[in-house]
Amino acid sequence: MSENGQGYVVAVVGAGMVGDRLVSELRRRGFPISELRVLARTARTAEVGGETFEVGVAEPEAFEGVDFAFFAGTEGEKGAAVQLSGAAIERGAVVIDNGSDFRLDDNVPLVVPEVNAGDLAGHNGLIANCNCSTITMLVPLAPLARKFGVEKVVVSTYQAVSGSGRDGVEALENGREGVYPKPIDRNAIPLIGGVGPDGYTSEETKMRLESRKILGLPDLEVYATAVRIPVHTGHAESVYVELGREVTKDEVLEIFSSAPGLVFSGDADGFPTPLEAAGEPGTYVGRVRVEGNRVSFWCVADNLLKGAATNAVQIAESLIEQALVTPKAKV
Amino acid sequence: MSENGQGYVVAVVGAGMVGDRLVSELRRRGFPISELRVLARTARTAEVGGETFEVGVAEPEAFEGVDFAFFAGTEGEKGAAVQLSGAAIERGAVVIDNGSDFRLDDNVPLVVPEVNAGDLAGHNGLIANCNCSTITMLVPLAPLARKFGVEKVVVSTYQAVSGSGRDGVEALENGREGVYPKPIDRNAIPLIGGVGPDGYTSEETKMRLESRKILGLPDLEVYATAVRIPVHTGHAESVYVELGREVTKDEVLEIFSSAPGLVFSGDADGFPTPLEAAGEPGTYVGRVRVEGNRVSFWCVADNLLKGAATNAVQIAESLIEQALVTPKAKV
Repeated sequence: MSENGQGYVVAVVGAGMVGDRLVSELRRRGFPISELRVLARTARTAEVGGETFEVGVAEPEAFEGVDFAFFAGTEGEKGAAVQLSGAAIERGAVVIDNGSDFRLDDNVPLVVPEVNAGDLAGHNGLIANCNCSTITMLVPLAPLARKFGVEKVVVSTYQAVSGSGRDGVEALENGREGVYPKPIDRNAIPLIGGVGPDGYTSEETKMRLESRKILGLPDLEVYATAVRIPVHTGHAESVYVELGREVTKDEVLEIFSSAPGLVFSGDADGFPTPLEAAGEPGTYVGRVRVEGNRVSFWCVADNLLKGAATNAVQIAESLIEQALVTPKAKV
Repeated sequence: MSENGQGYVVAVVGAGMVGDRLVSELRRRGFPISELRVLARTARTAEVGGETFEVGVAEPEAFEGVDFAFFAGTEGEKGAAVQLSGAAIERGAVVIDNGSDFRLDDNVPLVVPEVNAGDLAGHNGLIANCNCSTITMLVPLAPLARKFGVEKVVVSTYQAVSGSGRDGVEALENGREGVYPKPIDRNAIPLIGGVGPDGYTSEETKMRLESRKILGLPDLEVYATAVRIPVHTGHAESVYVELGREVTKDEVLEIFSSAPGLVFSGDADGFPTPLEAAGEPGTYVGRVRVEGNRVSFWCVADNLLKGAATNAVQIAESLIEQALVTPKAKV
């Protein structure tokens, strides 16, 4: 399963920070690739994920022969997937979209593989990758919810500027204006996305609605406050949960120590931070406090990796494992 | 009421960042002072609050003739008030201590003047200033609690390095080691103070116990997570509250627009940030969301001013207004 050998024809749409991480994660995880195309708005030669690509134009014909099309997606604007996913699916590709356009569509599975890989069955060619903040919270929350039930979640985020791509990094490092409503360096901005009529931002509403869909709990109470802080990469979250029954700290730690994709960093000095999670594919949890059915914890993941690229590649791997995609070359 | 004229003999104990702000707030607010002494561990000439002082040694005799002794206090170690407040009180001074040593003592009023100035009556010469994070939350929370009742509070903090004094600023700007357990620049550290047997840090426990004492609600549920972020000055907090009854957003905004000491910054672009609150004496609130009896908001205050020096000076002003202190010179 090497380049030009056995494997899948893969297209990565988008050459920004998520596109970059998609290429490097496909390589690092040894995804079976016979051909890897990078597509963007304009053709050019570019470094993506540490490799040099002749980037092609993202247009319908570019998806001829593609088995997996990863759309890097963007927060806050309609992604390329809205224009091009149909053309890719028609040509036989399975589309995995990191953008938010299709996540709440009833016909589109919204998947964090550790949590709900089973939802991939019966997909129609399009699978949505979950919001980065939602993923970071759900990797530790879902196994608690499965075992004990969950009634209420209150979450406050500490989000990195790379969630806004290279523009966000420029705003932090060079004070670039127009990216955030106020200066981000040495500051905290409690506004990510537009504000809806209920006062919640789009980021906060994603955390509520995506959590409900993925956990299969349409009435779950989720109260989120999404905040940008002057960190490059790594979204951290302070999470408070009311479970369906009283639990002991040992019961919680047993789950946190064994849940797939989760690393328990310890409670005191072992707590995880964004600087340590950056560049790592896992989700980290610590600062666990338990009182009756109330559980508080702190979790961190690299927003570009587990929050985006890693999760997307894991979705493709799960499709292969579950025999839910067959490369056309092998039909 | 000018220097060497009518007014009080005031001592400020501590020449760090809080001592500095105590001097400048006493001046800015026009506190009636006949003599202002700055005391510290060692005698020296020093700039404090923009003035040059011959700093005296903080020892019992230095409190002779003092009416108000402000102890700047320190987080995380026994403050000078433990050693010296008795000597100051014996000599007729009222001590206002910014440290945490006496806050939970039943014989010591713990006061945020906007909230519980009435608790100053019957003091025994020692009054405790509240923790900076608790103050920031209580200025908006207390008027909601008074009007509607409050059952539960979940709070996550975004705390500035100046809460650790000049050491904290050095850690942020120059990477000074030994101040925080991990690097703070471009990071978030969810550990402020030592961890107790229940898993909560001392900062988190202060927020719970001080809130209960000040609000007079010994059973109030408070779940706090205290986090240091790379901000110089200004503690921000994401607060979720369950009130005693359902409320409308208008009811909440009416209170936030009229509560003493509170500035409503608006909901969308008007939200407050640490950069804007730094150097200001007020407490700022925004991002208000209301669903039934669940209310979420974001609040910010300068941790050295309203979180420390301003609140301490307001306590002294309230003692004067309530005729709870008579300067010895006037007896």
